[in-house]
Amino acid sequence: MYENEIDSVRALLQSSPRPTSLTERRQRLDLVASADPVAPDIYFERQIIGTCEAEWSLAPGSDPTKTLLFFHGGGYCSGSIQSHRRMVAETGRAARVRTFALGYRLAPENPFPAALDDGLAAFEFLLAQKVPAASIAIGGDSAGGGLTLATMIRLRDAGKPLPGCAWLVSPWVDLEMTGASMDEKDTVDPLIHRDYLEELAGAYLAGTSAREPLASPLHADLPGLPPILIQVGSAETLLDDAVRIARRLGAVDVATSLEIWPHMIHAWPLWAARLTSGRMAIASAGAFINEHLAT
Amino acid sequence: MYENEIDSVRALLQSSPRPTSLTERRQRLDLVASADPVAPDIYFERQIIGTCEAEWSLAPGSDPTKTLLFFHGGGYCSGSIQSHRRMVAETGRAARVRTFALGYRLAPENPFPAALDDGLAAFEFLLAQKVPAASIAIGGDSAGGGLTLATMIRLRDAGKPLPGCAWLVSPWVDLEMTGASMDEKDTVDPLIHRDYLEELAGAYLAGTSAREPLASPLHADLPGLPPILIQVGSAETLLDDAVRIARRLGAVDVATSLEIWPHMIHAWPLWAARLTSGRMAIASAGAFINEHLAT
Repeated sequence: MYENEIDSVRALLQSSPRPTSLTERRQRLDLVASADPVAPDIYFERQIIGTCEAEWSLAPGSDPTKTLLFFHGGGYCSGSIQSHRRMVAETGRAARVRTFALGYRLAPENPFPAALDDGLAAFEFLLAQKVPAASIAIGGDSAGGGLTLATMIRLRDAGKPLPGCAWLVSPWVDLEMTGASMDEKDTVDPLIHRDYLEELAGAYLAGTSAREPLASPLHADLPGLPPILIQVGSAETLLDDAVRIARRLGAVDVATSLEIWPHMIHAWPLWAARLTSGRMAIASAGAFINEHLAT
Repeated sequence: MYENEIDSVRALLQSSPRPTSLTERRQRLDLVASADPVAPDIYFERQIIGTCEAEWSLAPGSDPTKTLLFFHGGGYCSGSIQSHRRMVAETGRAARVRTFALGYRLAPENPFPAALDDGLAAFEFLLAQKVPAASIAIGGDSAGGGLTLATMIRLRDAGKPLPGCAWLVSPWVDLEMTGASMDEKDTVDPLIHRDYLEELAGAYLAGTSAREPLASPLHADLPGLPPILIQVGSAETLLDDAVRIARRLGAVDVATSLEIWPHMIHAWPLWAARLTSGRMAIASAGAFINEHLAT
């Protein structure tokens, strides 16, 4: 069902191979991930938090008292507000909430825990704006999924209020790359391979252990986190990151939903304009977020 | 959230320990699983298929052209239309479909593949009644979850039409009991332990290998199956049966959703009258079934 639609995204990615230089890589992700235009009816507003840029979005009819705080993917080394703008805004529309996308500091210039510090600061910025924690969802794709978990773990350990729910797309939670799918899915995944992840992990960790729980939440104590939706594609080397973190979360009594989407590739909701399964995944995430945020 | 409600079910189970004799065990499951009355507005009708008893249910407002075919749990050795009547009827109400519960033949009197033959015959009975396959959901809890998968695998391998979707609650799919949760959750699971499962598996298999794919679908080839919702409790020795079969289904491009419900025990929707999380799980299953059946 709809499985051929992914070919257009595969072709797009193939037409723009990943460069080796950092600057070009960042430009490339901004380009391929924002290949489809943002809807003209979304209202955007720029925000500065400390040294980070952030962006509000609001779709017509959404409830501005509820917020999706979003951490983009890109292996902690690339990705931006621009690359993920369409995906974030459309998820806000589906959830009928405002969104707040964070341009956290990137490695290698800013290694662990810079991104995490920025994520925490963004959540606390929202609290300072009098947004109740229970009216905030945190979400992210890929590295942003790991960052979402790490941010909630830091909040929990500091005794601070937690968001109402969390949403992880294709999360990267094991910076050692020990999942069986890392090899099993290597030939079908057009984006994520072990050597690339090892390079990114090295840049982000900069000497910190790859088993550090706040960098690899697969190794974290997870009790007490709010309800979590995890979405992953079947054509992903990171399939087992999603499956294993779902199992670990569920086993310690976190309300956990895992969706495995046939034929989909890493972070496919980025290309929802071309993918029925992208729009359906965003609709499912939207329903989940809407249901779990306090009014 | 709602986690204390499960204590009333734990107390119910503790007040009626599992007997050793087969007859008493069957009576006990019928009693503890049907502790709460069936709603008075459900219309039931008896049906005979071959040597098996079956039962239709219809809630007011449901669509009689769509059907949930249900296989009860009980380790292939107990369970009945009576034990699961409330859970089945309420899921039919939530899905807005008719239900058809099958009293398949039980082991040890009727070992593998008797239950499977009966499951297949029930599906074909529905087809013979001119119900389109795409308007049928198959579902089951525990052994009934394994039977659901085995039935679909047999249909697929015979080139027959498949149901529109499937629903598994606390499925038992590994008759070797190799999941890590078998030991990890042993102290919190009030119902399912390794020695009990070994006894049941022995009775059902009667010499067939525990790795036979139609008895332990964890070992089956799974491509081509319809969308599947799997629900499991976090307080279950069978947690890893659910997680592992979700992973295996998803990896071969079956649309797979896994829900892990905090603090819930084996087949908890049986006691939905006492459990908010039971009613929520049935509501979620109902929405899933309704969404995936052809009109």
